[in-house]
Amino acid sequence: MSRTHIKPFPAQQGVPGFLLAGIPSGIKKGGVKDLGIILCKRPATAAGVFTKNRVAAAPVAVCRRRLRNGMVGAVLVNSGNANACTGESGRRAAENTCAAVGRAAGIREGLILPCSTGVIGVPLPENRIAAAVPRLVRAASESGIDDFADAIRTTDTFSKTAAVQATVSSDTVRVCGIAKGAGMIMPNMATMLAFILTDAFVEKSLLRHMLREHVATTFNRISVDGDMSTNDTVLLLASGVRAEVKSVRSRTGRALEALLQTTMDRLAEMIVGDGEGATKLIIIQIEHAATDTDAQKAARGIADSLLVKTAFYGEDCNWGRIMAALGSSGARFDPARVHIVLNGLPAVVNGCGSRKNLRKLREAVKKDRITLRIDLQSGSAACTYKTCDIGHEYVRINAEYTT
Amino acid sequence: MSRTHIKPFPAQQGVPGFLLAGIPSGIKKGGVKDLGIILCKRPATAAGVFTKNRVAAAPVAVCRRRLRNGMVGAVLVNSGNANACTGESGRRAAENTCAAVGRAAGIREGLILPCSTGVIGVPLPENRIAAAVPRLVRAASESGIDDFADAIRTTDTFSKTAAVQATVSSDTVRVCGIAKGAGMIMPNMATMLAFILTDAFVEKSLLRHMLREHVATTFNRISVDGDMSTNDTVLLLASGVRAEVKSVRSRTGRALEALLQTTMDRLAEMIVGDGEGATKLIIIQIEHAATDTDAQKAARGIADSLLVKTAFYGEDCNWGRIMAALGSSGARFDPARVHIVLNGLPAVVNGCGSRKNLRKLREAVKKDRITLRIDLQSGSAACTYKTCDIGHEYVRINAEYTT
Repeated sequence: MSRTHIKPFPAQQGVPGFLLAGIPSGIKKGGVKDLGIILCKRPATAAGVFTKNRVAAAPVAVCRRRLRNGMVGAVLVNSGNANACTGESGRRAAENTCAAVGRAAGIREGLILPCSTGVIGVPLPENRIAAAVPRLVRAASESGIDDFADAIRTTDTFSKTAAVQATVSSDTVRVCGIAKGAGMIMPNMATMLAFILTDAFVEKSLLRHMLREHVATTFNRISVDGDMSTNDTVLLLASGVRAEVKSVRSRTGRALEALLQTTMDRLAEMIVGDGEGATKLIIIQIEHAATDTDAQKAARGIADSLLVKTAFYGEDCNWGRIMAALGSSGARFDPARVHIVLNGLPAVVNGCGSRKNLRKLREAVKKDRITLRIDLQSGSAACTYKTCDIGHEYVRINAEYTT
Repeated sequence: MSRTHIKPFPAQQGVPGFLLAGIPSGIKKGGVKDLGIILCKRPATAAGVFTKNRVAAAPVAVCRRRLRNGMVGAVLVNSGNANACTGESGRRAAENTCAAVGRAAGIREGLILPCSTGVIGVPLPENRIAAAVPRLVRAASESGIDDFADAIRTTDTFSKTAAVQATVSSDTVRVCGIAKGAGMIMPNMATMLAFILTDAFVEKSLLRHMLREHVATTFNRISVDGDMSTNDTVLLLASGVRAEVKSVRSRTGRALEALLQTTMDRLAEMIVGDGEGATKLIIIQIEHAATDTDAQKAARGIADSLLVKTAFYGEDCNWGRIMAALGSSGARFDPARVHIVLNGLPAVVNGCGSRKNLRKLREAVKKDRITLRIDLQSGSAACTYKTCDIGHEYVRINAEYTT
């Protein structure tokens, strides 16, 4: 079995079959980009994964319904307004903005998906959006990825794209992902939007399977503040102008899987790295857990602990808080058998603090990338989770972000 | 059925049957009080509720074992060191300090309970504690409650006591509670110690029943940061020198229940009010939930949401974040039927924001006591939960509190 050789490519080169754009439409003040579009030259096969929040935004409901047939002609995305908790009129507003795209681009309305991110509970300025749509459609081009990535940002401090390709039997397959998300990230993808584009041809049920599988090990293994949003959406679109993927076991299938995993993992890491006010990326590796569920509970218990996150912000190697978070995570393990290794240095051995590495640990915790390896000695399950610290900047952003 | 008439009394008057003290023993620097004792003139009946954290501290394990017979002669409490994650030697250290109390006070060691709070993973300075014990025992008096309350503080900004009494058929029953806890509070009582003393005579199984019942609706309905500690302990001791309580239905039983509920509710509110860096007390009242479990999940989802807590810190009436937190709480409800009322002002009506009260809501959210009434219109269950906001001071305290 040959390993797929994955190479990056400049995202501005685009993915065959897709045209993108991002422009200011006046939802946000100051003429910043706030409206983006992905136009498919021909309808693409599509799959989506959405927030599990019971309070789902209007565009999420529309997307879920329209994705049932697995085909998409365009995706319209706005930032600055979540169109959530807006009732029936919110649903109509989402549909009306899609209808405007349909008229401007000559696409059937049922093939157009709406996505929104921003403040909750404020009516979507649908007229402003509809008025900007013809200009947006005209601006769309294969090289428009950066503008699109800019237009979907909220509190993100940088735009997030990842683009990789692989060649299989002289046919090149591309995957390019664009994401936004800074605060309110946690498993089940709170306030995160991600759009993954490929030029491979993939039948819709296979596409759905692939998306779920890779979301589970990337976007659902990150956490910023433990909150879950009303708008989270990950869409995977396949234009089908290149190599056909018939099964995950074929060479092209394996190549596409590797490209998807790489793209989504990079985007997930960028999202955590851009956690509101974060100063450190913390990678939690649970090893030898009793079951997969225990491994995930343990990882998430640590990733979501505010006391652990503020300790890392303070550059304190407070392994006691890590043990306490593990203990209340719901994972089954014997505290007296736990080992914790921080950036290669043993911090806890058999449940007790190792005091001999104290000076080295104090230095290690100052790094901006911390790897916590936690061996539960209870079985053979493992799990990797990525999170960040929480500090003053998080409080400032979220206390000032006003409705 | 006559209602119990509850009256406060000065805590320094003490509770007949108990002698208390608090002194500096050198665990903490600067000569501050860090060691406290409750001495029972005769063994008291006792009940305890402890942390559900799988990583429980050594003193918790010793307490659990010694409480099986339901009798207690003394409780030794230290702050400044949690004696958690200290292995076998931690357990021996806890037992050795109790043995010192036994020798100084002439009490059988098995009747002495240890409690610790403070930093995790550092060996307990048992020799220093044992050396201070004779002085501590000599200092114990009926009026020593304030010194005791001082000695058990960690990041608490004030000491926490509540003392109430009631007269039933010319017999007066007293209940006095002393607590500590500021950060790391959440259901299942993280880093919280509470000691409830009464002079009633209560048989141990009835005492256990009463403690569990009132912990469930007081200490287990508060949250500061969603973390759960290794050391949480609530002890209820009954000296038995006054009125005998034969059942919860008797007049004395009802009086004692009311006194316990009042005392524990006041202490719980003090703990939330003293949440690290908190500026507001937030009372969450869930109404018309489908089941008790749904009511509790809904309340806790809001109480633990970092985005909700930072919004209140910023004095922003961000009901969108409250809806989002509700939606991801796991509680079952129809978002389109939710009403949210903030300090008497409708903020959300049938799942949508009420924009007509916006100006009044912006004023209301500046108060330091916020009541959120949330009507789920799904059934008849209800639940009240108390929490606080989270701001810069929380981050400062927890980033600087060093191991």
